Amino acid sequence: MKINPLKGMKDYLPDEMRLRDFVQGKILETYRASGFERISTPMLEDMENLDKSDGGDNLNLIFKVLKRGEKLNAALEKGDEKSLSDMGLRYDLTLPLSRYYAANRAVLPTPFKVIQTDRVFRAERPQKGRLREFVQCDIDILGDDSVNAEIELIDVTARALLSIGFEDFTVNINDRRMLRSMLTAMGFAQDTLDSVCITFDKMDKIGAEGVKKELTEKEYPESAIEALDAFLKAGDFSIQRVAELMEDKTLSDRLIAIIDAVNALTDGRYKIAYAPSLVRGQGYYTGVVFEITCAAFSGAVAGGGRYDGMIGKFLGQQVPAVGFSIGFERICGILLEQGYKAPVAQKLALLYRDDVPFADVLKKAGTLRGEYAVTVLPQQKKLGKQLGNLENAGFAAVAFFDNEEIKVLGKTAE
Amino acid sequence: MKINPLKGMKDYLPDEMRLRDFVQGKILETYRASGFERISTPMLEDMENLDKSDGGDNLNLIFKVLKRGEKLNAALEKGDEKSLSDMGLRYDLTLPLSRYYAANRAVLPTPFKVIQTDRVFRAERPQKGRLREFVQCDIDILGDDSVNAEIELIDVTARALLSIGFEDFTVNINDRRMLRSMLTAMGFAQDTLDSVCITFDKMDKIGAEGVKKELTEKEYPESAIEALDAFLKAGDFSIQRVAELMEDKTLSDRLIAIIDAVNALTDGRYKIAYAPSLVRGQGYYTGVVFEITCAAFSGAVAGGGRYDGMIGKFLGQQVPAVGFSIGFERICGILLEQGYKAPVAQKLALLYRDDVPFADVLKKAGTLRGEYAVTVLPQQKKLGKQLGNLENAGFAAVAFFDNEEIKVLGKTAE
Repeated sequence: MKINPLKGMKDYLPDEMRLRDFVQGKILETYRASGFERISTPMLEDMENLDKSDGGDNLNLIFKVLKRGEKLNAALEKGDEKSLSDMGLRYDLTLPLSRYYAANRAVLPTPFKVIQTDRVFRAERPQKGRLREFVQCDIDILGDDSVNAEIELIDVTARALLSIGFEDFTVNINDRRMLRSMLTAMGFAQDTLDSVCITFDKMDKIGAEGVKKELTEKEYPESAIEALDAFLKAGDFSIQRVAELMEDKTLSDRLIAIIDAVNALTDGRYKIAYAPSLVRGQGYYTGVVFEITCAAFSGAVAGGGRYDGMIGKFLGQQVPAVGFSIGFERICGILLEQGYKAPVAQKLALLYRDDVPFADVLKKAGTLRGEYAVTVLPQQKKLGKQLGNLENAGFAAVAFFDNEEIKVLGKTAE
Repeated sequence: MKINPLKGMKDYLPDEMRLRDFVQGKILETYRASGFERISTPMLEDMENLDKSDGGDNLNLIFKVLKRGEKLNAALEKGDEKSLSDMGLRYDLTLPLSRYYAANRAVLPTPFKVIQTDRVFRAERPQKGRLREFVQCDIDILGDDSVNAEIELIDVTARALLSIGFEDFTVNINDRRMLRSMLTAMGFAQDTLDSVCITFDKMDKIGAEGVKKELTEKEYPESAIEALDAFLKAGDFSIQRVAELMEDKTLSDRLIAIIDAVNALTDGRYKIAYAPSLVRGQGYYTGVVFEITCAAFSGAVAGGGRYDGMIGKFLGQQVPAVGFSIGFERICGILLEQGYKAPVAQKLALLYRDDVPFADVLKKAGTLRGEYAVTVLPQQKKLGKQLGNLENAGFAAVAFFDNEEIKVLGKTAE
């Protein structure tokens, strides 16, 4: 039999699991203290729901569950792949939440401030830092179309990160419609905006000259290319400058309100910045998107945005929605690299000899619990060696059944 | 799109989720204070491992995951069901633990005292109280063949149940080999024992006369039937009596040692009893099995046993193992029926009017957190109605952005 976990999936050893439980506990504590409430949905969802969920590339990464019994036989006769499965493992927590809200709306408060933290699955090509099964920590606010929803999600998520020792991070925020509105005002045609955006996104790599060259090759209107080129070369990518150049000047109001409010809340412990080219992959986002980056680490540690269209697919009635997801695996990975130790109860080993009544050993263990997590273990012949092993295994102290001494172990007692 | 969860799976509303998190937290607290350490393994396991795992009926209930890409195309050409899938959702936590131990043994302590609490999946025919996705809370001790392992598991599991308010329960314990040894001594042939046991198990329903009649119809040796009938009619089903009648008199020593030690630990808060006909379904159990029942509720609330053969399948070397699993869903179901309320932080609603700066509202919320879980909400025009709704939704108090008053709400403040 095979002893390793499946490709792209992980076994967690006790030390790493302790860290994960600690981090999740701190995040949940912040979420709950802010009035968010945890829910849970099944790991499996109806295949049709998953297929129609605007999940972008993630739709190609769904683990599908095989039908059973007669249903499977009928599907095998048809012989096409689609009919073999009618449910799949969820690829995120947003689709299940939207279905959940539609099903339970009558008994849920408005706005509904909700916590989800659990596993999701994506059949990605395995690579460093990419798992096929991983944990997401999400908060969402459903039923509030005001900017307060975005402001509160950013505030709560930032405080959750601060509570586990993350500092000096930046909340990057954007509304994809702003860039498009600016490009329209410059004279690019509506049906070419996607293509122009793709070139614009290469700015960091190919520079303003490169962007101009590529757009010229694509034969877009010269005046539009000149206007974009002037914008890029001027180098002012502030939200105010983009707002000036937009066709719909009101589009930036929302973003400016969010940025101002968050700036009043950071206490200088983190930043919020307008990021004109920020795009999040999911197709279901409808407006504001945000993600959190940390200069010391590549990639985002949290991301989210507004998805006002998703719940309507289930309910037949639009419900505004916005969510923020902490990249739990990324956070734990960074903390592990930094050698972060979760502050949990110290471990004590209570050693006993074989000739004593074991019930009495357990009774004595009961008197030591509370201050310590107490592990009862048989005392070995070579006590010195055993104490060394216990110290290496992270035990802070040792007690003995037959006397009252508690021996504090060296390294871990520092 | 479909708004309900899949057949046999559940959405959990905030109130029920709060209870589940509380119960799991208390159980984990007891486990950890007793020196057990939590691990985690993937939801998915290799299909071959699952198939060979001696899981009994559960092997027919595995959700299989469809292969992908070229592997799937190749499988479709073969056209048989088996080749379509190479992984499946786990049906319990014991098989994954055995694989995990084999893979990580070099860095794990001996004995390894381990916690697992997470979801498992079984494609059961949906019915009341049977879910297709449910949570198990397991502790196991690997690498200890002494009775101390059983004693400690029973002690820790019983304390976990006591910590969430369960009392007056009974730990039923048995070793299936004892009954077989007694039947052998009575003169039943080795290859007929399974069949005799099945008839014996009907004792509660068909009585001693019914058992005798059925065994006579099966044409077993008359003297053996007479011996069993005398035993049944005498009505002494104590472990001492069974021990007297066994072929291998030492088989009961282990059970008696466990029962004596646990009796010294119960403090009169629960009982342990020999249950000669107790059988647990899983094929992987090798000796002692136990389960916890509560007179007030049908069915078991926890179950487990020794499975010394399982890890050897992965490791090629036997490692003694014993586990005890709390029926988390059953426990939560009972507590819900009893109207049990999880003692968590009280909820306070901080109400604000639209014309105030929202950042200031969040700052004020920060000053109220700690004592309360604080939900910020827009103040509605009909305040009286809003307060009534908040009270019904479980809020204990209301604060207002523009004054210092904290209004305690009626019912919940009782």
